[in-house]
Amino acid sequence: MLQNSDGDPTGILVAVGGNEDKDHDIEVLKNIVDLVSDPRVEVITTASSIPEEVGMTYKRAFKKIGLSHIGLLNIQSREEANDPGYIDRVKNANVVFFSGGDQLRITSTLGGTPILVALKNKYHKEQCAVAGTSAGASAMSQTMIYEGESTEALTKGTALLTGGTGLVKGIVIDSHFIKRGRFSRLMEVVTTNPGIIGIGLGEDTGVIIRHGHILQAIGNGLIVVFDGQNINYSNISDIEIGEAIAVENICVHTLVKKHGYDLWTRRYLKPDMVQDQLEKGQ
Amino acid sequence: MLQNSDGDPTGILVAVGGNEDKDHDIEVLKNIVDLVSDPRVEVITTASSIPEEVGMTYKRAFKKIGLSHIGLLNIQSREEANDPGYIDRVKNANVVFFSGGDQLRITSTLGGTPILVALKNKYHKEQCAVAGTSAGASAMSQTMIYEGESTEALTKGTALLTGGTGLVKGIVIDSHFIKRGRFSRLMEVVTTNPGIIGIGLGEDTGVIIRHGHILQAIGNGLIVVFDGQNINYSNISDIEIGEAIAVENICVHTLVKKHGYDLWTRRYLKPDMVQDQLEKGQ
Repeated sequence: MLQNSDGDPTGILVAVGGNEDKDHDIEVLKNIVDLVSDPRVEVITTASSIPEEVGMTYKRAFKKIGLSHIGLLNIQSREEANDPGYIDRVKNANVVFFSGGDQLRITSTLGGTPILVALKNKYHKEQCAVAGTSAGASAMSQTMIYEGESTEALTKGTALLTGGTGLVKGIVIDSHFIKRGRFSRLMEVVTTNPGIIGIGLGEDTGVIIRHGHILQAIGNGLIVVFDGQNINYSNISDIEIGEAIAVENICVHTLVKKHGYDLWTRRYLKPDMVQDQLEKGQ
Repeated sequence: MLQNSDGDPTGILVAVGGNEDKDHDIEVLKNIVDLVSDPRVEVITTASSIPEEVGMTYKRAFKKIGLSHIGLLNIQSREEANDPGYIDRVKNANVVFFSGGDQLRITSTLGGTPILVALKNKYHKEQCAVAGTSAGASAMSQTMIYEGESTEALTKGTALLTGGTGLVKGIVIDSHFIKRGRFSRLMEVVTTNPGIIGIGLGEDTGVIIRHGHILQAIGNGLIVVFDGQNINYSNISDIEIGEAIAVENICVHTLVKKHGYDLWTRRYLKPDMVQDQLEKGQ
């Protein structure tokens, strides 16, 4: 499977925090399809327990913003993830959108399957957008949070993690971030491994990730970035599961629309800096 | 009125995040009375809308840990705050404990009154403990949060502030911090004025503040410290009320039992460093 180390991906990722508007301005979804010309969308509803209903909602929303080519890929088993017809549809699309639901359905159903390999190849080699909302966003990172009490004390073992689809490296994405008060669980992840950057996505809000590392906020809410690079001290390896975590020096940023962040240099990008960075090509 | 600039206070402050145990180990309340010898407690229930009930709960809890001198000061009006009998009781106590409730009751009832002046003089000149839980803790700082939606996006104008009793300078204290997901409102305060250090107190958890600036965590939960000193950029002065706040570089620490923080040097103190700092006398 392709890795970021094989060079900058040609495709663009978009991670959305869930509950994006689908009836009124439909801003976030518009931002996604505007990333490609002549958008041909496939919506993968694998995460959802009510895939038909969710699929129809997105079909309506994408229709409202003027799209005509909108497919629904309700892949519910690993067997279906081998279906050559489905794989071809992913290959022919230039926007692949993962709905919300449960991110474990995405990884347990699609992990290691030909359809996911095809998607990753597309993302690395072609001009396309791979987007996901809520569970669909959380599943994108290499390490993925799949469970963990919100608004709990910052205690060791609260955030449960496993491997994500690995479309983006070096970060952990959490969604519904502000609404559900998920600061603690992302701080836990960053403390256990300060190499990982924590990205908390608010609702109706997202980040466009270009070149695999340049983030730009879209939508109406807030993105919270946790950078543990300068953690000087923590008790994480000395305490038992369930005990409270002491940690010195996690750096927190918030991004709103047009603001950005570079995952490689760990630099905050003001709106004009995002443009500069993108014009430089990476 | 005395200020920190008039020298180190002789008294010790204790700010507790609310909902401290009053039935089982009663650890936090024990930690408070252990700060003085031969404790004579007065509980000020001004913050509460059910002051008699709250007062009796504390009377029982302090009795359980072996205290005999426990007074209840149910001051409900500015007139009562002038009562020489009440003032004498504050003067004779060596532990003054503010219950929870609504911090605006504390400041609107006691602000500028002789009983508060007497308390501040005691705190600055005598070996005593001045403690407060929940609203009683929030009211201690010079600038006080009295309202502001939790788990809301970080938007300008969410946190409503006014002047607190000013027992401790340069910080804003928020309580029930983890349980109620109050990260956003403390980040807003620190962004509007990075000179202020934000202290978020978990429940059944507190900080002992010695010499007016050396914090030490007690109890079983978490203290979150927000330091905005190194904020490089924010949009706070460019946006309207209700708009989302972009901010670069808020530094976050968490403290658990025995860990500390120096408000003056903005230094995180590991357990052994707290001891060193206190032995140095300041």
